[in-house]
Amino acid sequence: MPRAVLCGLPLPEVEPGDDLAALIAGAAERECGGLRAGDVVAVASKVLSKSLGLLYRLDKVEPSPRARRIAERAGLDPRYVEILLRESGEVLAAIPFKRLVEEGVVAWETLARSREKLFRALDQFPTIFLTKRDGMLWTDSGIDGSNHPPGVYSVPPRDLDGHARRLSEQLSRAAGGPVAVVICDTEVMPGGALDIARGAYGFPVLMRRFGDPDRYGKPKFGGADNLANAVCASASLLAGQHAEGIPAVILRGLRYEWSTAGVRDALGKTRAAAAVRATLWHTARVLGLRSLLRLLRGA
Amino acid sequence: MPRAVLCGLPLPEVEPGDDLAALIAGAAERECGGLRAGDVVAVASKVLSKSLGLLYRLDKVEPSPRARRIAERAGLDPRYVEILLRESGEVLAAIPFKRLVEEGVVAWETLARSREKLFRALDQFPTIFLTKRDGMLWTDSGIDGSNHPPGVYSVPPRDLDGHARRLSEQLSRAAGGPVAVVICDTEVMPGGALDIARGAYGFPVLMRRFGDPDRYGKPKFGGADNLANAVCASASLLAGQHAEGIPAVILRGLRYEWSTAGVRDALGKTRAAAAVRATLWHTARVLGLRSLLRLLRGA
Repeated sequence: MPRAVLCGLPLPEVEPGDDLAALIAGAAERECGGLRAGDVVAVASKVLSKSLGLLYRLDKVEPSPRARRIAERAGLDPRYVEILLRESGEVLAAIPFKRLVEEGVVAWETLARSREKLFRALDQFPTIFLTKRDGMLWTDSGIDGSNHPPGVYSVPPRDLDGHARRLSEQLSRAAGGPVAVVICDTEVMPGGALDIARGAYGFPVLMRRFGDPDRYGKPKFGGADNLANAVCASASLLAGQHAEGIPAVILRGLRYEWSTAGVRDALGKTRAAAAVRATLWHTARVLGLRSLLRLLRGA
Repeated sequence: MPRAVLCGLPLPEVEPGDDLAALIAGAAERECGGLRAGDVVAVASKVLSKSLGLLYRLDKVEPSPRARRIAERAGLDPRYVEILLRESGEVLAAIPFKRLVEEGVVAWETLARSREKLFRALDQFPTIFLTKRDGMLWTDSGIDGSNHPPGVYSVPPRDLDGHARRLSEQLSRAAGGPVAVVICDTEVMPGGALDIARGAYGFPVLMRRFGDPDRYGKPKFGGADNLANAVCASASLLAGQHAEGIPAVILRGLRYEWSTAGVRDALGKTRAAAAVRATLWHTARVLGLRSLLRLLRGA
């Protein structure tokens, strides 16, 4: 009888210097009968950023000439672009998000209940960037102004796997047995945003069963699910409904093999640009040049 | 105290003509104290395909000249490509998956424990296709040979939202109150595959809070999570660990507003090609032509 329980952990507003592990363990005591060995705790990266004080204030940022140039073309505040450039290893692509909505490529009804309210947000951020940071792909490197005072932005910590390990060690002591930690952040995905894993310790990030025999002995095509992403998506079902008052969720009852490989170790270095290039050329070769042109023209 | 329970439903091997709703209700009776009003049931699209008998046998498929031509360039069985062409509204791109692994663009360790086993699967399917089917994006239109006898492939049903509605109506009768249904299938995502929603009834597919005021009254950038995808990802944490003997999972205790918009209604028509094109041009304009060339060259 496979069964699991999700238990949401309401936390008070987290301040710089707060002991996040103690807050989580305390909430688990009050809400979920305490932490237990085998628990998996999903934690929103934003509370980690808050506890570490990883905040930028726009009015203290001096934009470089390059930031000014990009900001003008992208329709953004140059000080925001300055933060973006500082926090990104590489800026790969500029997505004209507002225009995609204006032109109906992204249907506005999939994003908001009110077109006017949506465009008040898009007017501020008409362009979003696909970036690399610490070897991972992000939109805008995870920089986030929501639920911060105007002009304040948080950034995810570096070494999220290391933070997951430290939290796991602290929570494991509180539980008297191993507690895995997955650190989650919201990311843009085809068909709507999804909370995905950015750091992990204890919980296996990937199932690696591609090529294993299926029940007929054939090598299985597939079986490389990102289980840590599934943990974050599960947590979002409790957290997302409560206006971000539930930044941590316990998953109890999952069967898993303890794993010390974090998200970066498990996924390796991202080479998205190489994958895009190879796919464009293979499309031309296999389906014909006309197919490639149709893809690029968007017909 | 926000809390939810996941309860896995082991089903016997599903055969064409089986009453899937009755099988699910029976398993819920045995494993989860019966179905209850407010439950959300996540169902793997493959058992739906099996109950509907949506199977192809390669030895009964006659490939067209176009299928032969594409198959030769893609390194695939022409009969498989024939199925693909029949089941796809449009074939958008050809992804050289085997070559991406050979060249280390996708690290083989992220997919499998054994390189040899992995390549036994990749040799059969060196190319995967990005396709459109019923207005949605898929890889290979969801055609799937895993855990079928050699030469047999299942395809997802058309009108998956309609199937979700019918299952929801049947399960609601069994529960004596509303039971939502989400139909799930595994899809390739950046950083590992993930189970996502392909059909839904009752459960809201999307949160649509983009532009709503955040706690400082600013229009929120974000808040358009795909909640139905999160349901499927959650279910995969129970199903994925048990060699596909758990094709349905009950999520109990979620707070949600009943919604009759299915996945297709909620997401609207996919215009991926237009989004790719607009992003490439915006990248050149905002970041400079050199950035675009770097992206396309994969440097």
